[in-house]
Amino acid sequence: MDFNFSDRIKDLGGNAIREIFKLLADPSVISFAGGFPTKSTLPVQLISETTSSLMESADAANILQYGSTEGYTPLRQTAASYVSRYGIKDINIDNTLVISGGQQGIDLTFKTFVNKGDVVLVEDPTYLAVLHILKTYEAVAVGVASGDNGLNLDDLEAKIIKYKPKVLYIVPTFSNPTGREYSIENRIAIAQLTAKYGVIVLEDDPYSELRFEGDRIASIKSFDKTGNVIYITSFSKTLAPGLRTGIAIGHADIIRKMTIGKQATDVHTSSLSQAIVNDFLSRGLMDARVSELIPLYKEKKDAMIAAICKYMPKEFKYTDPKGGLFIFGEFDESLGINTFKLFPEIASKKVAYVSGHSFFASEDKFNCLRLNYSNASLEQIDIGIKRLGDFFKNIIANK
Amino acid sequence: MDFNFSDRIKDLGGNAIREIFKLLADPSVISFAGGFPTKSTLPVQLISETTSSLMESADAANILQYGSTEGYTPLRQTAASYVSRYGIKDINIDNTLVISGGQQGIDLTFKTFVNKGDVVLVEDPTYLAVLHILKTYEAVAVGVASGDNGLNLDDLEAKIIKYKPKVLYIVPTFSNPTGREYSIENRIAIAQLTAKYGVIVLEDDPYSELRFEGDRIASIKSFDKTGNVIYITSFSKTLAPGLRTGIAIGHADIIRKMTIGKQATDVHTSSLSQAIVNDFLSRGLMDARVSELIPLYKEKKDAMIAAICKYMPKEFKYTDPKGGLFIFGEFDESLGINTFKLFPEIASKKVAYVSGHSFFASEDKFNCLRLNYSNASLEQIDIGIKRLGDFFKNIIANK
Repeated sequence: MDFNFSDRIKDLGGNAIREIFKLLADPSVISFAGGFPTKSTLPVQLISETTSSLMESADAANILQYGSTEGYTPLRQTAASYVSRYGIKDINIDNTLVISGGQQGIDLTFKTFVNKGDVVLVEDPTYLAVLHILKTYEAVAVGVASGDNGLNLDDLEAKIIKYKPKVLYIVPTFSNPTGREYSIENRIAIAQLTAKYGVIVLEDDPYSELRFEGDRIASIKSFDKTGNVIYITSFSKTLAPGLRTGIAIGHADIIRKMTIGKQATDVHTSSLSQAIVNDFLSRGLMDARVSELIPLYKEKKDAMIAAICKYMPKEFKYTDPKGGLFIFGEFDESLGINTFKLFPEIASKKVAYVSGHSFFASEDKFNCLRLNYSNASLEQIDIGIKRLGDFFKNIIANK
Repeated sequence: MDFNFSDRIKDLGGNAIREIFKLLADPSVISFAGGFPTKSTLPVQLISETTSSLMESADAANILQYGSTEGYTPLRQTAASYVSRYGIKDINIDNTLVISGGQQGIDLTFKTFVNKGDVVLVEDPTYLAVLHILKTYEAVAVGVASGDNGLNLDDLEAKIIKYKPKVLYIVPTFSNPTGREYSIENRIAIAQLTAKYGVIVLEDDPYSELRFEGDRIASIKSFDKTGNVIYITSFSKTLAPGLRTGIAIGHADIIRKMTIGKQATDVHTSSLSQAIVNDFLSRGLMDARVSELIPLYKEKKDAMIAAICKYMPKEFKYTDPKGGLFIFGEFDESLGINTFKLFPEIASKKVAYVSGHSFFASEDKFNCLRLNYSNASLEQIDIGIKRLGDFFKNIIANK
């Protein structure tokens, strides 16, 4: 039987990274693709003890029963005060929605605002899954130019005027894929500009706890005076991705509509996951946890930068992030290196990255790639980058 | 700021049941709304022990890490053999997708097949959340007439020819809201008729383990010869709703597209929930578990039927289900009773049902209501039905 799939899905394949994962089933491949936390850091003992304690509590049966779509009330309350660390103040439980990971926050925002054919602005380059999600809404992603301090504000305003976008999606702190962070001035200007034109901002903040250096910069949401900014964060990078739990913070009217959208998909997020996250946050364990993760991730990042200096060709330029999980690099354009076409050949050398072009909405840039340093060991980082360096030096030598 | 919500969501309120839940925050209200498992049966000890054991296993860190969108591989394998109890044979892991509760299976099916304006056929009356989900796809729900043995096949064929629907959604075993089950002949005919016209069938089967009497009837999926039937079940009614875990079974091409749709929303279902469900199924605990639930639910159902006989007016006709969670009743139409308009008054008497009109796609039936018996105690069932009986007898007496 030939199936008559919907327009939104008929031509849609899996997103680039999820497809790469399957190629990487071979354990001898050193993967710098993906954005997995270091496996050895996953808090097995903590999850076990927390679950036992929750199942002995008076609330145990409620945690196993159906819950409200908005989320487990103690977690919503905890979240409303927790986000003050991102400068988000004066909010209450009606401004909070528990989401099944940050990805669901993105999906629900588009569900709430985006019609077929609508434009959504994204940083170029941006989190590639967003480009995939937008296709499921038959929406149009348009890239905004960016640099080391954030979005190019002239380009942002010009594109707002030209495209009348519904939403601007950004990862201002340790962006995926570049690892860069927007300056405070850039954040304030984005808040003002989008408020002026009535554009919804979706501020995605999964990485800001993983800061190696510098001071925390207040979120764009903290500068929101009109209610046009939705802030989402998840506990995938700090606690455990497998729990699929995050929080969305926004104007109560928006949260209400996102809740109606969520009702229609998973009813509510796993209550066990929610209760575990609530226990973790309300006992104030986040700071202790990230103080364990940060030195480890910084060591890996430093090792990867050192290996890049040592092994990669001099024509390879790269970001040196102050936090997060990713380094983004590009080869001099004159070399004509296409990281996408070369990927199968690279993978046969037992090393993997994500080809950079997957992250661009508006540009066809094939000379770049994203490297993740959290998933590999220090030794693997050295070996894997050497494999990449040898490969690309050879390509360049034979040009 | 006025928000410019998407067409799909701007006029959409919460679904009727989820809204009723909020009214029922008052613990003195006896609720026959909802479809909650009996709270005291929720397996607190089992979840605690299983989680401890999983976190001590070699797979612990994998369970906390990102997983594949398709689902936790051991659960997919277990599911492929588990569904043989529903007559579904000769399938493999590529026919399985783990879903975040049955609701997500419904959402993903529509995401995969339904364009704006498309018609989806449903039994009249049907699970009301489906009508809500279809609105988020701007699709049109059309009701098919049904009776004690299943769908009216003439009406089904006529509506397939007239509307060219993409999908037929049905709950053939202990239907929500009626508690009725389709005969085997009706199931075979539905499989044949939909295959003939190329209509996708979404067979939703959350209740069939909760059977009080009679033999299990094979699923419609078991009669699927062309791959047009998607079968979904969840563990919300048998293990714990709070885990938000179910499985979808279908043609590999359909499962692939549903997986792409799922990637774009929650990446994957909570791996902890998946591993708990896998442990439960693979240790063969389902039969022991439902053998504990069935006598309890049957006792409650019997108590509700007895209370209806005792207290409700003779003009109230009702189903007497052989399993599941619901009784559906209606008043003689000549009485002009409107259960929807009367609801606020009923709620003030500290008892609640779901007004039946919420379950109809094509009919305006206001003389009916759904009663759930799993959530209340035997004593509450007697008291609550007496409150309803007194109320409606008084209404009828004053007509």
